[in-house]
Amino acid sequence: MPKRIVVIGAHAAGVDAASAARKTDRTAEITLLTDEEYPGYSRCGLPFVIGGEIAQFEDLIVFPQAYFKMMKLGLRTQTKATAINTKDKTVETVDKSGKAETVQYDSLIIATGASSFTPPIKGREKKGIHSLRTLEDGEKIAKAVKDGAKTAVIMGAGLIGLETAVGLHERGLKVKVVEMLPQVLPQALDPEMAKLVQERLEQKGISILLNKCVEEFVGTDKVTAIIAGGEQIEADLFVSAFGVRANSQLAADAGIALGETKAVKINARMETSAKDVYAVGDCAETINMITHRPFLPQLGTVAVRQGKIAGMNAAGGYSLFRGALGSAVSRLFDIDCGWTGLTETAAQKARFEVVTGTIASRTRADYYPGSLPIKVKLVVERESQRTVGAQIIGGEEVTQRINAISLAIQRRMSARDLAKADTAYAPPLCETWEPFVLAAEIVLMKLR
Amino acid sequence: MPKRIVVIGAHAAGVDAASAARKTDRTAEITLLTDEEYPGYSRCGLPFVIGGEIAQFEDLIVFPQAYFKMMKLGLRTQTKATAINTKDKTVETVDKSGKAETVQYDSLIIATGASSFTPPIKGREKKGIHSLRTLEDGEKIAKAVKDGAKTAVIMGAGLIGLETAVGLHERGLKVKVVEMLPQVLPQALDPEMAKLVQERLEQKGISILLNKCVEEFVGTDKVTAIIAGGEQIEADLFVSAFGVRANSQLAADAGIALGETKAVKINARMETSAKDVYAVGDCAETINMITHRPFLPQLGTVAVRQGKIAGMNAAGGYSLFRGALGSAVSRLFDIDCGWTGLTETAAQKARFEVVTGTIASRTRADYYPGSLPIKVKLVVERESQRTVGAQIIGGEEVTQRINAISLAIQRRMSARDLAKADTAYAPPLCETWEPFVLAAEIVLMKLR
Repeated sequence: MPKRIVVIGAHAAGVDAASAARKTDRTAEITLLTDEEYPGYSRCGLPFVIGGEIAQFEDLIVFPQAYFKMMKLGLRTQTKATAINTKDKTVETVDKSGKAETVQYDSLIIATGASSFTPPIKGREKKGIHSLRTLEDGEKIAKAVKDGAKTAVIMGAGLIGLETAVGLHERGLKVKVVEMLPQVLPQALDPEMAKLVQERLEQKGISILLNKCVEEFVGTDKVTAIIAGGEQIEADLFVSAFGVRANSQLAADAGIALGETKAVKINARMETSAKDVYAVGDCAETINMITHRPFLPQLGTVAVRQGKIAGMNAAGGYSLFRGALGSAVSRLFDIDCGWTGLTETAAQKARFEVVTGTIASRTRADYYPGSLPIKVKLVVERESQRTVGAQIIGGEEVTQRINAISLAIQRRMSARDLAKADTAYAPPLCETWEPFVLAAEIVLMKLR
Repeated sequence: MPKRIVVIGAHAAGVDAASAARKTDRTAEITLLTDEEYPGYSRCGLPFVIGGEIAQFEDLIVFPQAYFKMMKLGLRTQTKATAINTKDKTVETVDKSGKAETVQYDSLIIATGASSFTPPIKGREKKGIHSLRTLEDGEKIAKAVKDGAKTAVIMGAGLIGLETAVGLHERGLKVKVVEMLPQVLPQALDPEMAKLVQERLEQKGISILLNKCVEEFVGTDKVTAIIAGGEQIEADLFVSAFGVRANSQLAADAGIALGETKAVKINARMETSAKDVYAVGDCAETINMITHRPFLPQLGTVAVRQGKIAGMNAAGGYSLFRGALGSAVSRLFDIDCGWTGLTETAAQKARFEVVTGTIASRTRADYYPGSLPIKVKLVVERESQRTVGAQIIGGEEVTQRINAISLAIQRRMSARDLAKADTAYAPPLCETWEPFVLAAEIVLMKLR
């Protein structure tokens, strides 16, 4: 009898899990359950449809129906998983017509993702507070823009908040970003690096209001203003970008253990506390490669990697997840920014004593036209002299510089190893001394 | 009494050596000797002045007179070092007026570089065979173009040959490249990867003639044609890009040991066989990090690293050179190409059994406009499963991808380590699965 593998969720983590299971077991009966209408689209692309770089939301569907057919994956859309029974190995489902069904599994993969979250602020039950998590969310924001919204307030200066701010600005809206903390991208960057991003956004015409808590949503039925830091801010469009919460309730209700992050606790095989049940993606914890503590990077790169590993294991294969560094990049207007590992702030919170090196350099030989300024900050743990983090703002080839440093961190390269590293050079493409090598030199001078 | 440090050569290796010596010993008396008129310029930039991206050759001077003053480095231009006496610790010099002088040293750094080389082909004594090694060489080629040259033949399809071909093509010349071997970039790329570069050059209008030995230079006084593979090829301009030879004769004449590569033999401190004598840059050997054998990458990145280390050691400091991978990149028209470590061909020559993985991918999310095709080839040693080389053609961020893989090789990452690596992603900047991660997956499938 073929193995029955059930996957709850059909985006990055879920589809990659199902695909890996299929590649591991050609005969398994694989079923994906999703309560959404559209499966397999890229959430990371949503801000770029808002901004107009991508023509329509449907373009974000990276796994069309034909893919599920080709891979022989049973897909049930608009079908909600309402309960898991880990003893009977069943999932209770309800489809859009209200019909309930019990689905049997031999292996279950929970890929329920995360949901955007608005804190318990006065008036949050009012209409007109948008999120940007689903394709439908995106369509609603696009409709508001089309209907003539001229001003927008984004609540939260994390990555999604800033990317949405840029997208709306590119659509001609006057955009304000309101952030409770004293900097933009507080999870990703140290304050002085975040300042560079903030300045560029402000130069382009986006207002950034820091140190301002959203205290109230104002309006009779529909929100027309917020009160933040005592100030009333009117707008036509309000986007809640406070953050996301792992959808771990379904697992918790089934008695599956959550971790300290309130996401589903997993081991290196992506197994939960329940036998033959796996969890992957934004609903699951991830182990930080440096601190060895659980954290929630909630990134697409982590989701697909975890999905692949869980899919292999669920189908009878063997694969281990090695943890993550939270490496990520973004393009905000013409500025690329990226980070990997720990910021100085995060390192201090983890009680690591660190030494940092920051270099302002250019991306090409001095005499070669068209070079851009680039700023690289390295974070190095003092005792081991091991590189534990990096942030890069501006310049060219930021993504692959982050990848290079990410590999360096994964392979425990010290500041000296990086300072002595062999790198490539050509006048139109970089400097003889690669900026991250120079940043490592600066760390070494401080360690002397 | 201050330490007397003498450096022969005043380009990348020499000036970086002198600068590092100065930073190590503030009181040392540091003298640079060069037979050239212009010191401290970037040879790597020469093709881009030919091509017009850079306005004039003087722009390539990265170390102007002011730099030598600021660093308190005694610079003697147009002063040739004619002999070294390692017992008396002296260098014999002759300046442009013919005046001879004996210069005493406590530490000597030989940074005599390399010279372009034309094989003993019939007629090579004739006028009009240009090289592109020095600023003066560049000026002569530029003058020939200005004087109305309409066609050019480049002999040699190495990096300098191709970059010069592109530069002359951009100036409107009809360019033919003649190569003895059956591919372009034979030192850098495997045949099937080289083919991609060749096709792009041909699409742009450059003729590439492979498997053709230059047999004769034709012309009465001045060369007007070459005979290659039996065919006579006329042109207005001839550039010899056969390659370079280490300038190691001065060292050899002083009894300093050369290595099997005929460049100066050095240890990890960049010391030669003679006490207190160092050698760096294109005239010195380099240890290949993978094969542990001497080789001659003759790259700017290696020159500055070796220079820095020799300068520190010569001034009483302590620093070791860890070897090199020969990592390099180039932009030919709109195609970036890069390589690090061993090609499949080079690995086989070194008697390594290797498994390769090649992926053709794109540089951005499927749905994001403007992505470019990119091809990545990984070379993995079979027993250790260690990554030993990579080649990348096309796409974006090629330089930093090469740097990432270079770090992976330096830290002995296996194909599996790379396949499981944490990388960064954003729709406008790369794919969720980084191409070099996918290439590693392909290697793993072959190793199973």
